[in-house]
Amino acid sequence: MTMAGRRRAAKVRVGRMRNGRFATRGDSVAVEEPLEVRLEVPDGGGMREHPVSVTMRTPGDDFELAAGFLFTEGVVTDPGALGDVRYCRSVDPQEYNVVTASLRDPAAFDSSSLTRNFYVTSSCGVCGKASLEAVEVMGCAPVAEGTLAVAGSDVRALPGKLRVAQRVFDRTGGIHAAGLFDASGEVTVVREDVGRHNAVDKVIGTLVLSRALPGSGFGVVVSGRSSFEILQKAAMAGFPMVVAVGAPSSLAVAFARRFNMTLVGFANRGGYNVYAGGERITGKGGGT
Amino acid sequence: MTMAGRRRAAKVRVGRMRNGRFATRGDSVAVEEPLEVRLEVPDGGGMREHPVSVTMRTPGDDFELAAGFLFTEGVVTDPGALGDVRYCRSVDPQEYNVVTASLRDPAAFDSSSLTRNFYVTSSCGVCGKASLEAVEVMGCAPVAEGTLAVAGSDVRALPGKLRVAQRVFDRTGGIHAAGLFDASGEVTVVREDVGRHNAVDKVIGTLVLSRALPGSGFGVVVSGRSSFEILQKAAMAGFPMVVAVGAPSSLAVAFARRFNMTLVGFANRGGYNVYAGGERITGKGGGT
Repeated sequence: MTMAGRRRAAKVRVGRMRNGRFATRGDSVAVEEPLEVRLEVPDGGGMREHPVSVTMRTPGDDFELAAGFLFTEGVVTDPGALGDVRYCRSVDPQEYNVVTASLRDPAAFDSSSLTRNFYVTSSCGVCGKASLEAVEVMGCAPVAEGTLAVAGSDVRALPGKLRVAQRVFDRTGGIHAAGLFDASGEVTVVREDVGRHNAVDKVIGTLVLSRALPGSGFGVVVSGRSSFEILQKAAMAGFPMVVAVGAPSSLAVAFARRFNMTLVGFANRGGYNVYAGGERITGKGGGT
Repeated sequence: MTMAGRRRAAKVRVGRMRNGRFATRGDSVAVEEPLEVRLEVPDGGGMREHPVSVTMRTPGDDFELAAGFLFTEGVVTDPGALGDVRYCRSVDPQEYNVVTASLRDPAAFDSSSLTRNFYVTSSCGVCGKASLEAVEVMGCAPVAEGTLAVAGSDVRALPGKLRVAQRVFDRTGGIHAAGLFDASGEVTVVREDVGRHNAVDKVIGTLVLSRALPGSGFGVVVSGRSSFEILQKAAMAGFPMVVAVGAPSSLAVAFARRFNMTLVGFANRGGYNVYAGGERITGKGGGT
């Protein structure tokens, strides 16, 4: 199977009004298509297939998206148990919209994750506090002290590095990006998607597939805002740091503080806001 | 029950690096908290409660959000059958994070909607075409010709009108907005949320609760991008027109064309792009 031919941008005809003139021309839009993820789990002598999710995503990096999603949502609890990831063979005509991952060890499959969600009801009804506790129940522990330190000047440079690598955005203006960065401020992996959570899952999926988790030496930079969901995925991957170009939500801030993570918002060349874990930013970026 | 005291923005301490100087100060972030929606349906002589969903949202307009979500997701098929909508009485301490809606007529409850999603698997696996067909199966029909006409100059003014009404955004920079507009270009309802689909559900919820659906005389303007999900919700409400400040996805364009809707993207004072249904925009906005 190949991902060749999967389009991330599509041509459409558009009527364009600008400067008092109306004209019709060709334009590019980000592709959005459903992806179904299935998981094969050893059962008795054979394999049993479980439907896991269907999500709207931009095609490309589908195996990474599937692997990242399975791990960050707690469906697969041990990335090392993940075997083959492939497009579903029984689908005809092949649309490359169904990915099947195989698990080598049934103990790494948490079937309760398929019905559970992070927004559990407790005796208090639901509340942000209960949502944070639910993530702890998933096995997510606070990040250890002393992990990852990034210079403030490098933090300010992250959004620019992410932007340079955004190939689809240039054509469509309609896509989110997430990038993996290390202590030197280098952005080594960039993935794009119409769904910002998918872009983060694709980045984490590269680490799942290369058996490089937990990612305590990495942070993730995102092109948009940060929310509970983004922090939860970063925490599952073991990232000590999330840098966002946009604003955080209240629950993103509460999440970062509870899990001892560093959360940066409104990052750009001119500066940034630190909502939690400022001790991981050295020099604070005052210089150039 | 009251919504008084529900905070939409929260104060946090933030370390702020700008112009080479680092300082700590107070700042506002958009509140994100889970909301659980439950539906009471007549069953025999009594009422049976069904858990429907838990979604992360910005508090406020919770009854509208619940009513809008129940309708746009096809759980409640007839808005006229909706009775009382209230915060759950049995929750203590009351966190105002659980809303229970009552249905007068069990025939208006589609229980299959609780397990079904719009991204159905068909023999071809999943694909965008199947997703569009699934919306038709939900009872969504193409918009009739001749509904709603808006002047191009009014289209250009919509984002500004939406922006002026965004109270929470001014403080937090971290929230989406959706607004209801009519043929005169007036924006009569604006709702905000950390989730853009929630903002749209809140707007539609005002029409559900006031029994003003279908909304064939209205359009919705959104502060961000347009996706399958936004178009699907607009179509369920009967809106002939979606105007977005940001870019559309490929499936949003395909959706609008299939359902005979008008889709505008990149709207601002200087112009806009028309991806579908340009015949509803009069004068094309060339003048001032």
